[in-house]
Amino acid sequence: MMRKLATDHMGLEILHLGDCFRLLDSVPIGRIGFTSGGEVLVLPVIFLVDGQDVVFRAKVGSKLASVEVGHYVTFEVDSYDATEETGWSVVVRGLAEVQPETECARLDTLGIEAWGGPTSERAWVKIRPASITGRRMAAAPEED
Amino acid sequence: MMRKLATDHMGLEILHLGDCFRLLDSVPIGRIGFTSGGEVLVLPVIFLVDGQDVVFRAKVGSKLASVEVGHYVTFEVDSYDATEETGWSVVVRGLAEVQPETECARLDTLGIEAWGGPTSERAWVKIRPASITGRRMAAAPEED
Repeated sequence: MMRKLATDHMGLEILHLGDCFRLLDSVPIGRIGFTSGGEVLVLPVIFLVDGQDVVFRAKVGSKLASVEVGHYVTFEVDSYDATEETGWSVVVRGLAEVQPETECARLDTLGIEAWGGPTSERAWVKIRPASITGRRMAAAPEED
Repeated sequence: MMRKLATDHMGLEILHLGDCFRLLDSVPIGRIGFTSGGEVLVLPVIFLVDGQDVVFRAKVGSKLASVEVGHYVTFEVDSYDATEETGWSVVVRGLAEVQPETECARLDTLGIEAWGGPTSERAWVKIRPASITGRRMAAAPEED
């Protein structure tokens, strides 16, 4: 699907930014990793790419809605084909921002729900990427 | 597939431990969340459940292989059906331990590779769970 790519020191192909965005758009859920109370939380979210940002709806009162403004979070999406033993992952690092009311009204039109189903209360969280990296595990990798 | 379950404050069904292990066994990959150099990393791994532990192969020299012994990590698996708008996630928290040579020899027989493909060098990491929690987003959730 993609041209021959450079590989990192682990032998994984390094995806270009355009491919990262395309793959981000190809899956419905991702996972947010962040620290809360000194421990690492990893939670699934239903998300969309809005411009160059990752946006998702969190339920008010959930751990996700408590992501601290101005703190970095890690967002990961992936796909794996067990038969072909191929896969890819894209990781976004950025600042998480709970959105103000005016922006929520616009985001409500995007048509995604919070993980856990519909809610009348809304808390939209936006991740503004500081970095986006993608890696692909190609078919038939060479032995080391 | 499962009996009616209690729900948490977010309306998600709380899975029993037996269901968590069954679901862990149903998917080939999960994600490890851990801190490294002050930032949260979330990386995919091909894993197996070995007894009550989660085990995976990491490439020597990778960030995963550098998980510090005796530090807690978070391991997450999930599944989402975009059509039905149903899904589940299981989160394991535990101590990550790079395995000694004798244990590696046994784990080598389990037949899984590192994310990124085969490698002649091996580093097996085991997560001994301190907690396992699972949540299910049931079909047709009620409006809040």
